[in-house]
Amino acid sequence: PTPQPAPLALAALGGSSGTSPTAADKPKPKAWYDRLQLRGYTQLRFNEIISGDKTAPAGQSRLRSVHDGSISDRSNFSLRRVRVVLQGEISDRVSLYLQHDFASAVLGQQAGERREGFGQLRDAYADVFLDRHKTFKVRLGQSKVPYGWENMQSSSNRLTLDRSDGINSAVPGERDLGVIAFFTPRTMQKIWDELTKEGQKTFGNYGAFGIGLMNGQGTNKTEQDNALMQVALVSLPFRVGDQILEVGASAMRNRFRPELRSGGVSAKGYADDRIGVHAMLYPRPIGVQAEWNWGKGPEFDRASGTIKEKKLNGGYVQVMGRFATEGGSTLWPYARWQHYRGGWKVALNAPRVETDEIEVGLEWQAMKALELTLAYARMRRSEADERRLGRAEGNVLRTQIQWNY
Amino acid sequence: PTPQPAPLALAALGGSSGTSPTAADKPKPKAWYDRLQLRGYTQLRFNEIISGDKTAPAGQSRLRSVHDGSISDRSNFSLRRVRVVLQGEISDRVSLYLQHDFASAVLGQQAGERREGFGQLRDAYADVFLDRHKTFKVRLGQSKVPYGWENMQSSSNRLTLDRSDGINSAVPGERDLGVIAFFTPRTMQKIWDELTKEGQKTFGNYGAFGIGLMNGQGTNKTEQDNALMQVALVSLPFRVGDQILEVGASAMRNRFRPELRSGGVSAKGYADDRIGVHAMLYPRPIGVQAEWNWGKGPEFDRASGTIKEKKLNGGYVQVMGRFATEGGSTLWPYARWQHYRGGWKVALNAPRVETDEIEVGLEWQAMKALELTLAYARMRRSEADERRLGRAEGNVLRTQIQWNY
Amino acid sequence: PTPQPAPLALAALGGSSGTSPTAADKPKPKAWYDRLQLRGYTQLRFNEIISGDKTAPAGQSRLRSVHDGSISDRSNFSLRRVRVVLQGEISDRVSLYLQHDFASAVLGQQAGERREGFGQLRDAYADVFLDRHKTFKVRLGQSKVPYGWENMQSSSNRLTLDRSDGINSAVPGERDLGVIAFFTPRTMQKIWDELTKEGQKTFGNYGAFGIGLMNGQGTNKTEQDNALMQVALVSLPFRVGDQILEVGASAMRNRFRPELRSGGVSAKGYADDRIGVHAMLYPRPIGVQAEWNWGKGPEFDRASGTIKEKKLNGGYVQVMGRFATEGGSTLWPYARWQHYRGGWKVALNAPRVETDEIEVGLEWQAMKALELTLAYARMRRSEADERRLGRAEGNVLRTQIQWNY
Repeated sequence: PTPQPAPLALAALGGSSGTSPTAADKPKPKAWYDRLQLRGYTQLRFNEIISGDKTAPAGQSRLRSVHDGSISDRSNFSLRRVRVVLQGEISDRVSLYLQHDFASAVLGQQAGERREGFGQLRDAYADVFLDRHKTFKVRLGQSKVPYGWENMQSSSNRLTLDRSDGINSAVPGERDLGVIAFFTPRTMQKIWDELTKEGQKTFGNYGAFGIGLMNGQGTNKTEQDNALMQVALVSLPFRVGDQILEVGASAMRNRFRPELRSGGVSAKGYADDRIGVHAMLYPRPIGVQAEWNWGKGPEFDRASGTIKEKKLNGGYVQVMGRFATEGGSTLWPYARWQHYRGGWKVALNAPRVETDEIEVGLEWQAMKALELTLAYARMRRSEADERRLGRAEGNVLRTQIQWNY
Repeated sequence: PTPQPAPLALAALGGSSGTSPTAADKPKPKAWYDRLQLRGYTQLRFNEIISGDKTAPAGQSRLRSVHDGSISDRSNFSLRRVRVVLQGEISDRVSLYLQHDFASAVLGQQAGERREGFGQLRDAYADVFLDRHKTFKVRLGQSKVPYGWENMQSSSNRLTLDRSDGINSAVPGERDLGVIAFFTPRTMQKIWDELTKEGQKTFGNYGAFGIGLMNGQGTNKTEQDNALMQVALVSLPFRVGDQILEVGASAMRNRFRPELRSGGVSAKGYADDRIGVHAMLYPRPIGVQAEWNWGKGPEFDRASGTIKEKKLNGGYVQVMGRFATEGGSTLWPYARWQHYRGGWKVALNAPRVETDEIEVGLEWQAMKALELTLAYARMRRSEADERRLGRAEGNVLRTQIQWNY
Repeated sequence: PTPQPAPLALAALGGSSGTSPTAADKPKPKAWYDRLQLRGYTQLRFNEIISGDKTAPAGQSRLRSVHDGSISDRSNFSLRRVRVVLQGEISDRVSLYLQHDFASAVLGQQAGERREGFGQLRDAYADVFLDRHKTFKVRLGQSKVPYGWENMQSSSNRLTLDRSDGINSAVPGERDLGVIAFFTPRTMQKIWDELTKEGQKTFGNYGAFGIGLMNGQGTNKTEQDNALMQVALVSLPFRVGDQILEVGASAMRNRFRPELRSGGVSAKGYADDRIGVHAMLYPRPIGVQAEWNWGKGPEFDRASGTIKEKKLNGGYVQVMGRFATEGGSTLWPYARWQHYRGGWKVALNAPRVETDEIEVGLEWQAMKALELTLAYARMRRSEADERRLGRAEGNVLRTQIQWNY
């Protein structure tokens, strides 16, 4: 018997040949634009240090943030994120998520200066669903590391302008390459669906239970060792009367090789292990959100002039409200206190960062396409540069306009 | 009373949650592909210096242009622009324009050499319309600086292969980050609509009156000071018998910090102030287009070996025809004379550029998808390198094929 | 008579004005999403050197491949290709192909290290069809150099994980900038259409006869001389009983300037001339595929410490099967032997590469959207670095998951 594939297989395979996706005969395949969708968002910012340590002598910290390079004495408008996503159900059992950012810089250009606006990958993953109800899925490729609730939440959804140092220090850039298994009981998915429909800021489709194996060297960085990061996240939503509460925990075991000021990557890997907890009460109309994590990681030791494994801890507590206006828009006032003590592993020489900050702000979702955030932050921060000592203090006024498409 | 948003607000907010844009219930929202559109164009060039100073000893100018790196003794085919645009009406009052270019190079790669073909942002803006007739709009983000008529006009539309040195020296790359307000009386919009429908090469949707505040450091460059560029453009179309005349003016006030050959960016900002005028008679069938501008800006001073503020002026005069062929295509013969004396602020050390050039050419719009331009240029140019003296002369034959999609 | 274009011309020209493609009146123009299509594929890999020369002392070859940087002692997951294609018929006679890759790295970033995930161009061409039956076409822009059968075949279709050193050494990266003329008799196109419909891995739409003029300096590299590469490819499918046989040949004449370890590009061009042959029997169900090529090219000469023109030759022989499973998927077992002796022109100083490799593998086309490949390779390779002597040996286990969208 001729071992030629049956017609069904042929139809299914036709499209992978690159040029003529018009092969299928019987059940008309979906048009490409019904399988795939383009969307995205852009964040335009304007920060102003209204008082404090805008500049400082060499050797002392200036008021700077690891999250936003335009908190500076020399800045005006900046594009923080320019995202384009290509996503869709590419078969009954496989979905695609491919996101890039046009707010990525390339260093070392003319006069050694940086150039803005290059397109760089954020996510490139496929979800393979193992059951019909999509409660189990395996995520393959570059995606967010399942560690920390706010790390999972899209920046397009987040209320504060930046993530907290404490939680984000685990995975700056949030992504890595690997394989993650997610499991979400249907009852929990229903609660999240209800929250999403209501317009609440959930953390997205990252499952109630997630466990992953990833490179562990960070977003868009070349793998530097032969070991894998192990990481897990649990987040469980509950009904408590008319309110919805979500609680969870994260754990991460990794070895990390920081980049060195002397050039290249550390030949030695450092333990990069953490555990964290989170809880949130979704705002109906007042909510609370808090996370904390503890662990150890690479940190520059000034006494010895070398990187060592040191303890770290940090997190935040946030309160927020959610109010509808008569015109159909939504107002989200919020306040967040954050604290962090530990290394910033992706900066040169993994400098120690000491952060205490209070941010008070208001997000106005004027319409689906446009959101405006105003924030005032009282910052006390050490600069993420091991050559600069002490901490800078100051008050920063921040504005962001975000358009969604 | 429960402060939950009304259903209308919920529907409107649903889509910003990133994953499930299927929320809305009553008036079925537009499909993504009806809200957004992908389009673009690519320019393939082949230049040949047929006679003149192809090369020169060290210290003397070679025949080179700031607009096209493939005018060289060592070049053949080149991609000048590979543009992809994502645009659309993302709500009744907000429209998106997001354009990138795949003809951007990154320097300092293997052996220190450049690599071509990286995707880099050109435009990333949202237009917010303040009135129902869209006469007032505010443009937010990265977009063209409203200065100079030909700077506004899309390169896909321009007749000559490159912009003129005189006008483009104000804003090489044409874009910056900031906020611009545009106002266009409906009577003027009607004239432009008529011109567009007729197939005339207008300058696009940049308003009759535009006024902007922008970073002022140039396209995709990191802001280097705390001051903003102030810029304004007026362009007014009139009917004169069967002809349409457009006249206008531009003004710009800025401080600019050039990049230095010794590395890094000048710690000092230089005045970068200009005013310009423009006029054009649209070709029915013969047209004239002219611009000129005067001002001062950073320019390398050979005597002192430093950058100083110096006077500059330049512009062009162009005549062109527009003729339909029997086969339905259009022929655009043209001739342009241009002149410039002043600094080129975005090159290392802001070198002085002295340009006199005559270009004679023919654009053949064979069909909507394909355009061919042949041009001959008699150039007399100093190279934009402060280490090279004098001016190079030569004759250049240039061809371009453009495909529009 | 007024030389204004006829209405037909106006409609045709309307769309090129960038902003309002709504001009045409009578035959409703296709929507943008019916003219253009987005598609692509991503390859996630995990390689493991299970035994052999993972590392080596300075001066000696380690087990590395020019095709996959993640064959290393320090690697886990890697994205080999993240492709996005925008393609379509942009008029009756013109089609577009614009492909970029988000698995491109930029070198020399923080600490001099590379960063992954930048978007870089692969293809940017327009095909202009010269006759109604599309047997003649001219390809303009950046596209694959018509040399070598497997170089033409899409990596999304290829059975082995990487191309062979022997054939790919002619055009690493496969693309260049220029103009190619293709001719395909309709009888041959019919055979290829039949093969594609059947799910066979053809080499795509590269014509039965192709002849091109291209820059010749390689993919996304700046042209370095004033000479053009001349290249030609013939590939002819025949029916032989129930089987289909394809045979062909390639030829290339070029001058190439390697990049130097001392910095910059060689001032001297080297002959880079080759001829090759190929033959394949498509698997019904067992097939054979083989290619070989001979020539001369730049190669580092250890005795003199300079690059010289030296002889080279190499190719491969592959056998493969194609079997349908009951579930509708397809299995492709294969084995390939490859051999190469010659320079690797795109590496610094054009080092000599000596490769002997056997790869045995299995591709499982689980469904249209998802393919899995497992391969075992016995490699004997010199590292592409003129400072390392000898050859490394080892056994490598390789896996790849590919998703198509």
